[in-house]
Amino acid sequence: MKNYIKHDPWKIIEEGFRPEYNEISESLFSLGNGRFGLRGNFEETFTGKTLQGSYLAGVYYPDKTKVGWWKNGYPEYFAKVLNAANWIGIRVEIDNHELDLNTCKVSNFIRILNMKEGYLSRSFTAEFSDGKQVQVETKRLCSIVEEYIGTIQFSIKPLNFSGEISLTPFIDFDVVNKDSNYDEKFWEEKNKGNDNNIGWVTAVTKKTKFVATSGMIYEIFKGDTPIDSIIDHQEKEKYIGHRITLNAEEGQAITLNKYCCNLTSLNYSEENIVENCMQYLNKAKEKGYDKILSDQAEAWEKKWAESDIQIEGDVAAQQGIRFNIFHLYQTYTGTDERLNIGPKGFTGEKYGGSTYWDTEAYCLPFYLATSEEKVGRQLLVYRYKHLQKAIENAEKLGFSRGAALYPMVTMNGEECHNEWEITFEEIHRNGAIAYGIFDYIRYTGDKNYLAEYGLEVLLGISRFWSQRITFSTHKNKYVMLGVTGPNEYENNVDNNWYTNYIATWCLKYTLESLDWVKTNFSEKYTEFSNKTNFAEAEETERWRDIISNMYYPKSEELGIFLQQDNYLDKEQIMAKDIPEDQIPIWQNWSWDRILRSCFIKQGDVLQGMYFFEDHFDRETIRKNYDFYEPRTVHESSLSPCIHAVIASKIGDKKRAYQFYLRTSRLDLDDYNNDTEDGLHITSMAGSWLAVVKGFGGMRVSNGQVSFAPFIPENWTGYAFKIRFRGSILKIEVKENKVYISNESDKQVDILLYNKNYAIKANETIKAEAIPGDALA
Amino acid sequence: MKNYIKHDPWKIIEEGFRPEYNEISESLFSLGNGRFGLRGNFEETFTGKTLQGSYLAGVYYPDKTKVGWWKNGYPEYFAKVLNAANWIGIRVEIDNHELDLNTCKVSNFIRILNMKEGYLSRSFTAEFSDGKQVQVETKRLCSIVEEYIGTIQFSIKPLNFSGEISLTPFIDFDVVNKDSNYDEKFWEEKNKGNDNNIGWVTAVTKKTKFVATSGMIYEIFKGDTPIDSIIDHQEKEKYIGHRITLNAEEGQAITLNKYCCNLTSLNYSEENIVENCMQYLNKAKEKGYDKILSDQAEAWEKKWAESDIQIEGDVAAQQGIRFNIFHLYQTYTGTDERLNIGPKGFTGEKYGGSTYWDTEAYCLPFYLATSEEKVGRQLLVYRYKHLQKAIENAEKLGFSRGAALYPMVTMNGEECHNEWEITFEEIHRNGAIAYGIFDYIRYTGDKNYLAEYGLEVLLGISRFWSQRITFSTHKNKYVMLGVTGPNEYENNVDNNWYTNYIATWCLKYTLESLDWVKTNFSEKYTEFSNKTNFAEAEETERWRDIISNMYYPKSEELGIFLQQDNYLDKEQIMAKDIPEDQIPIWQNWSWDRILRSCFIKQGDVLQGMYFFEDHFDRETIRKNYDFYEPRTVHESSLSPCIHAVIASKIGDKKRAYQFYLRTSRLDLDDYNNDTEDGLHITSMAGSWLAVVKGFGGMRVSNGQVSFAPFIPENWTGYAFKIRFRGSILKIEVKENKVYISNESDKQVDILLYNKNYAIKANETIKAEAIPGDALA
Repeated sequence: MKNYIKHDPWKIIEEGFRPEYNEISESLFSLGNGRFGLRGNFEETFTGKTLQGSYLAGVYYPDKTKVGWWKNGYPEYFAKVLNAANWIGIRVEIDNHELDLNTCKVSNFIRILNMKEGYLSRSFTAEFSDGKQVQVETKRLCSIVEEYIGTIQFSIKPLNFSGEISLTPFIDFDVVNKDSNYDEKFWEEKNKGNDNNIGWVTAVTKKTKFVATSGMIYEIFKGDTPIDSIIDHQEKEKYIGHRITLNAEEGQAITLNKYCCNLTSLNYSEENIVENCMQYLNKAKEKGYDKILSDQAEAWEKKWAESDIQIEGDVAAQQGIRFNIFHLYQTYTGTDERLNIGPKGFTGEKYGGSTYWDTEAYCLPFYLATSEEKVGRQLLVYRYKHLQKAIENAEKLGFSRGAALYPMVTMNGEECHNEWEITFEEIHRNGAIAYGIFDYIRYTGDKNYLAEYGLEVLLGISRFWSQRITFSTHKNKYVMLGVTGPNEYENNVDNNWYTNYIATWCLKYTLESLDWVKTNFSEKYTEFSNKTNFAEAEETERWRDIISNMYYPKSEELGIFLQQDNYLDKEQIMAKDIPEDQIPIWQNWSWDRILRSCFIKQGDVLQGMYFFEDHFDRETIRKNYDFYEPRTVHESSLSPCIHAVIASKIGDKKRAYQFYLRTSRLDLDDYNNDTEDGLHITSMAGSWLAVVKGFGGMRVSNGQVSFAPFIPENWTGYAFKIRFRGSILKIEVKENKVYISNESDKQVDILLYNKNYAIKANETIKAEAIPGDALA
Repeated sequence: MKNYIKHDPWKIIEEGFRPEYNEISESLFSLGNGRFGLRGNFEETFTGKTLQGSYLAGVYYPDKTKVGWWKNGYPEYFAKVLNAANWIGIRVEIDNHELDLNTCKVSNFIRILNMKEGYLSRSFTAEFSDGKQVQVETKRLCSIVEEYIGTIQFSIKPLNFSGEISLTPFIDFDVVNKDSNYDEKFWEEKNKGNDNNIGWVTAVTKKTKFVATSGMIYEIFKGDTPIDSIIDHQEKEKYIGHRITLNAEEGQAITLNKYCCNLTSLNYSEENIVENCMQYLNKAKEKGYDKILSDQAEAWEKKWAESDIQIEGDVAAQQGIRFNIFHLYQTYTGTDERLNIGPKGFTGEKYGGSTYWDTEAYCLPFYLATSEEKVGRQLLVYRYKHLQKAIENAEKLGFSRGAALYPMVTMNGEECHNEWEITFEEIHRNGAIAYGIFDYIRYTGDKNYLAEYGLEVLLGISRFWSQRITFSTHKNKYVMLGVTGPNEYENNVDNNWYTNYIATWCLKYTLESLDWVKTNFSEKYTEFSNKTNFAEAEETERWRDIISNMYYPKSEELGIFLQQDNYLDKEQIMAKDIPEDQIPIWQNWSWDRILRSCFIKQGDVLQGMYFFEDHFDRETIRKNYDFYEPRTVHESSLSPCIHAVIASKIGDKKRAYQFYLRTSRLDLDDYNNDTEDGLHITSMAGSWLAVVKGFGGMRVSNGQVSFAPFIPENWTGYAFKIRFRGSILKIEVKENKVYISNESDKQVDILLYNKNYAIKANETIKAEAIPGDALA
């Protein structure tokens, strides 16, 4: 755990340079706009600890799988999130000394991520070995208004000398991925060019042949006066730079405004990509730096107006939730169905791929409640488009007749991951994808989605389950052998309760959906049946048999479901009794020891209670929570948020708040000692879940939204907004009162603490808050 | 399966060149002498399919572990069997055409491994594109008399021309390992030299710094006349070659006798290694090729006299068993306690390491019965010397207080393997190592070994089990969670019956051994206790508790032990029902499908019945055999032999014979489609087990050897010899009679079909053979 980020409601602040934490800071100070993004790397050369990272949405490299011992069924490659051009780069030399915070003496360093207005600023004083001092101020952003534009303002002032300063803004595609399997470079140069103060490089990825052009245009000022200067165009492989030498005067700042554009062949034809880039660059420069900055602030103001969560009386919590919301919007905007929410977004390379079950299980509810309906739909369509690949993936493992196994990790629908216990066995992901469809329809009411796309996906998934399940003649029940549940600290177990449960739920939901489509879209249904060779009678009969005869491990004595067969045979030690110097166990224990222990990486039975809470009475949920939570080490970033929601539900307010804090400040405080690899983007949605579904008790059922808020002890109040079926509701909780405002122009009927309220257009209702543990 | 090797009782014959099978043939035609060995590569250049392989016992390279996803506890490196100098090489040019069977037209090709006399010969006619034809005859051996010497006789005769022929005998250390993890070369040149007709290269391995010198000396004959010739000394990195150009006359053979010596720093100091090599070379040349060849024949004659198995009426079976015995002796001679029996011996690189549990479980009984007592002892001492490393290995996984986990694969005592389900979980290997001690003492009567070495190993192993076992408060029994049994088609299972059984057996045997040492070597016992910090009362109490309360999965209904918990939940399909085009399943099915199936790679419960047959009545063994064998796909080379012994025991003679044939001709017929990687050396001992313990019914108990032979249907008779406690017995079975001859000068008391016989020195007894299924 670290504690060097200053608490502030709207800003992430690093005061004083901490080179030892620089990679952590680089992650925290990442910027993005859904199209591209980058880590908080410095513009100027830095020879200290750094992970260079600049990423383009949807652009990946199929890196040949690296494996010790091949197992049949493994994918041939792992799609890597590709480090793309360094477009921020500005080399700075002063009398042949290079500005490098690793070699200069640094003072007055401050780095700020302004989340309210969407930019990153930095300032510091650097002293060279010859005593010369400069003051540097930088500001940059990835525009959410002009989605291909990023700008940098870099200002340098000699403090105690006058002399020559040279600045070399550059574009450099000669970059590496740290996680390259074979130390290979993934980009090849296609072409490049320079023209006065404009320059660009076009590169193409090996194998996948993605083309990307990154270009720059710039202007230079002395004080406020624009100046012309002699430019030395430099070229290297995959690189262009413009070396500009200037006479600087003591006390007068030189300012470089660098406008950059990043385009890819996903949206621009190879023929026109350079031309388009040039047009964007000229347009951006015309618009000017100040205008781009103010547009950015305005656009973020709108976003915050709709999605901000305000917390009173707890700055750390406030900073945490805004940091999470800010990064979620930086990562995914829902404008392109080919994109998804990578586990590290634009903040690191680790884990590769772009899509995990995190999307449906954690991120979807956030986007459903804070964005237009089409954003959530886009996430679903993404999976629909991958259905054929999921069928092929299942075939590769020996399944047939249209069974679909969605990949654990994917970029384009093909499986990337290659650990047998995950790739082949962590199949509950299929359940989350079906649940995503259910959740979307429950929230939006858009049941037609089933007929258009959803039912085909559900059929593929149900066909998979019906083949993956084994009938045990011994138990006279259906069982599920050899799976890995959400708790990855168990591998290859039999009858993981969560997986068994979600599998049969999928079958039930598919049956319901079939009926609904059949009744409401009979033509579509016929088309669907033909397309999928659906043997309705035979297939549904087997599903019904499975539904009726599934085996669920449980302990009658303890009144709990069992995470898997034999779970109770393990030595039952509580997580609190693990010596502190052995935490996190994944860093300190052998894999062998972890597997044999009872410790749970993330909720497993409880993940099921979270998804299907209506299926269980409160007492059952409490018993399972009381049993499993003390055995959970929460070493997955996805764990605490689910526990926050469940703890809220059963009235364990104190723990709920702790879980919330752990989720929302996971990266800010570097809880898991891995923020340097990038941020945990998908679990950020979990912080939102913790507040809205947890403290706010927000649920949707039968087309109605309900709330049951309580205030965590440390807070004096909080407020959040949700979009719901065309309306916007603001929920505010303070001084033991709940206020719900209808910010739309039609009446909304809601449930508050199980009581019906009809809130008229633009009206607010008020009610007494009820403590969390009184909820049922 | 292939069928191109001609059946012959003493020879392995390839008639007609089959370049497509050349890598298979290279494996089959391997030579070795315990110190070094090589695949059946050609002396001359061959640009076709080939796996170049020449190996030095005990010389390895710690190749950095290659892994997709690191798990804590994995070893940093994998010790690779190192491809060493090509010392057989002779480049042949005729008028600037190079002799290369891949480009010449080849006829009259024949390759013969003469197992009786211990050499490899080859002859062929090659025609060049210009119509010139040569006749080539080669013969080579790895001397078992002069253990550092290998010789080659290479004879070439122009058939239809006279002209220039150049021969370039060379030594080349510039070789690669095909299984190098990072395409690295492992040898670096240290020095090299040439002097007239002698040349050598000394190389050193990276990291491990093993030094090896390979040298050559040669002589050339025209017809039978030695000739002098002009030698062009050629040098390249890690290479020396002597180019000799000769005028050859039509119809007259030119013969090159190349004498080679391979020394390593295991036995020679770096300072003297070259000098020693020169001495050996000169000595070998003085002795002369013919004498070395005849010495070799004589030495093999002696070996065969003691260890041959003769089979009458079945040439395929005869050839198979001799091929196995021949290769076992080529691989391991028991003269050096640092060496062990690598899975591929000197016939390939695959699997690396040198020691698996195969040594104790399969090879030890062979060496016990066919070699001097010290050979088996040497194999045990090897493990004793690795005890400290086994303790460190266990510590790495979180065990303590002297618990020892022997590695799955090792070269020097450190674990090499890196699949968690094997490295961490296939812990039954510890049991086999304890069993080896038991087996050695049972056979030899050398109980003192316990006091000297054995007890310390047993203690380390028992300490491991007592920590690895978990007390299940739920079952009120001790259980063993998360293991992989001998059947590697199941991973991470709970309560593998075999592992549970052998674990408690280890505890019992350790308790007995403690008592025995305490009683008979009380001083040694005290020393042992102090050295190991043995808390006798406390530790043995826990062991006794485990022994009394161990959980063993079983089915009362079926009367069998269960391979593991939940085994009966699997879909119960028989191996015979797997479609033929899906066999072997490891090549055709996804790992996922294999794991979930009921199919067994090699005997698991049955491995336990084999080790501990006295603990079970015949009916129990039969029931388990009847249940498990039909589910066994025998895709491990170690499977059929164990089944041959059990099938023999319960009277399933027909299957016993099939299992025997599958084991003994596994490589000759390339059953598993992998002979090209090298031979299955350790399973070759299984062929011997199948005959001696299977058909011959040989057992030892209470210091007495017993037999219960039967004749497989296809055979008219067979005979084998065993050494037993200083005597040599010959067992011959033919025409429904059993003859047992005592070839030693003292009386031996034996049991034959449970009846006592005292066989006087140099006498033979005769009895009626009893059919196998009448044994009880």
